[in-house]
Amino acid sequence: MAGVCCITPPQDERGYSLKGVKRSPVVPKVAFTATISNTLSGLNNLGQPLVFDDVHLNIGNGYNKQSGLFLAPVSGLYLILMTISTDYSTGPDVVVVRNGSRLCATIPSMNDHLYAGSPCNVIVQLMQGDEVWAKVYSRFATDRIRDGMWSTFSVALLSMDGSTSS
Amino acid sequence: MAGVCCITPPQDERGYSLKGVKRSPVVPKVAFTATISNTLSGLNNLGQPLVFDDVHLNIGNGYNKQSGLFLAPVSGLYLILMTISTDYSTGPDVVVVRNGSRLCATIPSMNDHLYAGSPCNVIVQLMQGDEVWAKVYSRFATDRIRDGMWSTFSVALLSMDGSTSS
Amino acid sequence: MAGVCCITPPQDERGYSLKGVKRSPVVPKVAFTATISNTLSGLNNLGQPLVFDDVHLNIGNGYNKQSGLFLAPVSGLYLILMTISTDYSTGPDVVVVRNGSRLCATIPSMNDHLYAGSPCNVIVQLMQGDEVWAKVYSRFATDRIRDGMWSTFSVALLSMDGSTSS
Repeated sequence: MAGVCCITPPQDERGYSLKGVKRSPVVPKVAFTATISNTLSGLNNLGQPLVFDDVHLNIGNGYNKQSGLFLAPVSGLYLILMTISTDYSTGPDVVVVRNGSRLCATIPSMNDHLYAGSPCNVIVQLMQGDEVWAKVYSRFATDRIRDGMWSTFSVALLSMDGSTSS
Repeated sequence: MAGVCCITPPQDERGYSLKGVKRSPVVPKVAFTATISNTLSGLNNLGQPLVFDDVHLNIGNGYNKQSGLFLAPVSGLYLILMTISTDYSTGPDVVVVRNGSRLCATIPSMNDHLYAGSPCNVIVQLMQGDEVWAKVYSRFATDRIRDGMWSTFSVALLSMDGSTSS
Repeated sequence: MAGVCCITPPQDERGYSLKGVKRSPVVPKVAFTATISNTLSGLNNLGQPLVFDDVHLNIGNGYNKQSGLFLAPVSGLYLILMTISTDYSTGPDVVVVRNGSRLCATIPSMNDHLYAGSPCNVIVQLMQGDEVWAKVYSRFATDRIRDGMWSTFSVALLSMDGSTSS
C-alpha cells in the first residue's frame, strides 16, 4: 500500500521548511514523574484531581503536588503516561483530562480480589497554560489505588511550538 | 557495574559527531492520536486494519482514518502507544504491525465479564513510507473494544534520520 | 485555574535561555527495544535482571542482551516503556529499576488462568553510566511471562543534558 506518500525531509538543520509538517525549534526540557506515597482507598472525590504526592522529577516546575495539576509551561506536543494499579480490590476508572476534557482512561478491573495495572497513555497538543490532571471517573465500594511505584503519572514535552523564522 | 561505558557527548549544537551514536537534525513534528467513536463488537476482520475513526491529532497527516493506516512521512525513531480496553466482555488480542510484521501485542483478558485495559507500547525505527496499523490477532465470541477514550492509538516521531553534515 | 503561569519561550533556536527550564542541545539517538524469544516460567531469579534476549533495536548500543542491562550512554531525560503479559497463568510482578531503585512496577494478575498485560511506563532523568533493568519482584507458583511481542522493553532518550552556552 506504500507509494507516493511522503514529505520531503529538511535540507539542513537551521530551518528549511517541511511540506505539510511544522518543524520545531530546540526543545526545552519539561517533564515530571509523580507517584502515590500511600495506597488510596475510600475514593469519593469524583471530579477532583487525583493527587500524585510523591514527586520524582519536575523539570520546568509544571507539576503541582498540592493540587495534582500539571500546567503546561510552553505550547507543544506532549507525551502523557499514567498507570493505575489496584490493590487486592476492584479498581476505579481513572481518566486524564485537559482543561476538564477526557484524553484517555484506565479500566483496571471490576473483579473483586484482583490485582491489575491499567494504562492511560496519549500524545497531545497542549497550549501554554493548559491544565492536565487525573481524576476518578467511576468507583466501586472497595476501590483502592496502589502505592509504591505501582501507580505512576508522567508527562514530557516532545517538541515545542514556535517561530520557524531564523 | 558501571565503569568505562560511555560515549563522549557532542561538543556543540551544530554537529560534532558522537562516537557510536547517530545524531539527529532538527525534528519535524509528526504525531497522531485516534480513538474509537463507538464500542466495537463482532470483530471478525482478523488481519484487516482496526480503524480508530475519531482523530484528535494528526500533525503531518500520517494517519488515515478511513484505512486505519499510519504512513511514516519521514524516516526516524517513532514512539507507538496503543491501549485496548474491553467492555464487560472478553477482549480480543490486538497487535500493532509494521508492514505486516508484529511490533507489540495486547492481551486484555480471557475472562468473561471483566473490564480490563492492556497496552501495546514500543519504540521503533521506521523508514519513510512504512505503514503501521493495528489489527485483531485472535478473538472470542463476545469480544468488545470500548470507546470513549478507553481505547487509544498514538504515534509520535522522536527523532528524524538525516544528513549530519552541515 | 489558568493564569500567570508560564515561562517565556526561547527567542531563537541557538540558545536564548528559558526561565526555569534547562534547554537541550541537539539530541543524539539512543533507543532500544527488546522482547522475550521464549515464554519464561519457573522464575526464581528474584533480584536478578530479567533478560529480554530478542533485540529489535539498539541505537547507541546501550542495551546488553546477555546481561539484560541498559547502560545510559549520555546523561538526559529518558522514556521507559515495559509491558509484561502473562500466559494462561498468574503473572509475576516485574519492576524496572535504576541502579537498584524501583522506577515503576507491573502487576499483571493474581488470578489463575487469566491472560493479562500490565505496563511499567515512566519518564526519568538518567546520568551517564546509570544502569536500568527489569527484575521479578514477587512471584507465584505458576508464573509465566509471554513471548512473541506480548512482553516488550523499550527505552529512548528524549533530550540530552549539556552545555547551554553557545
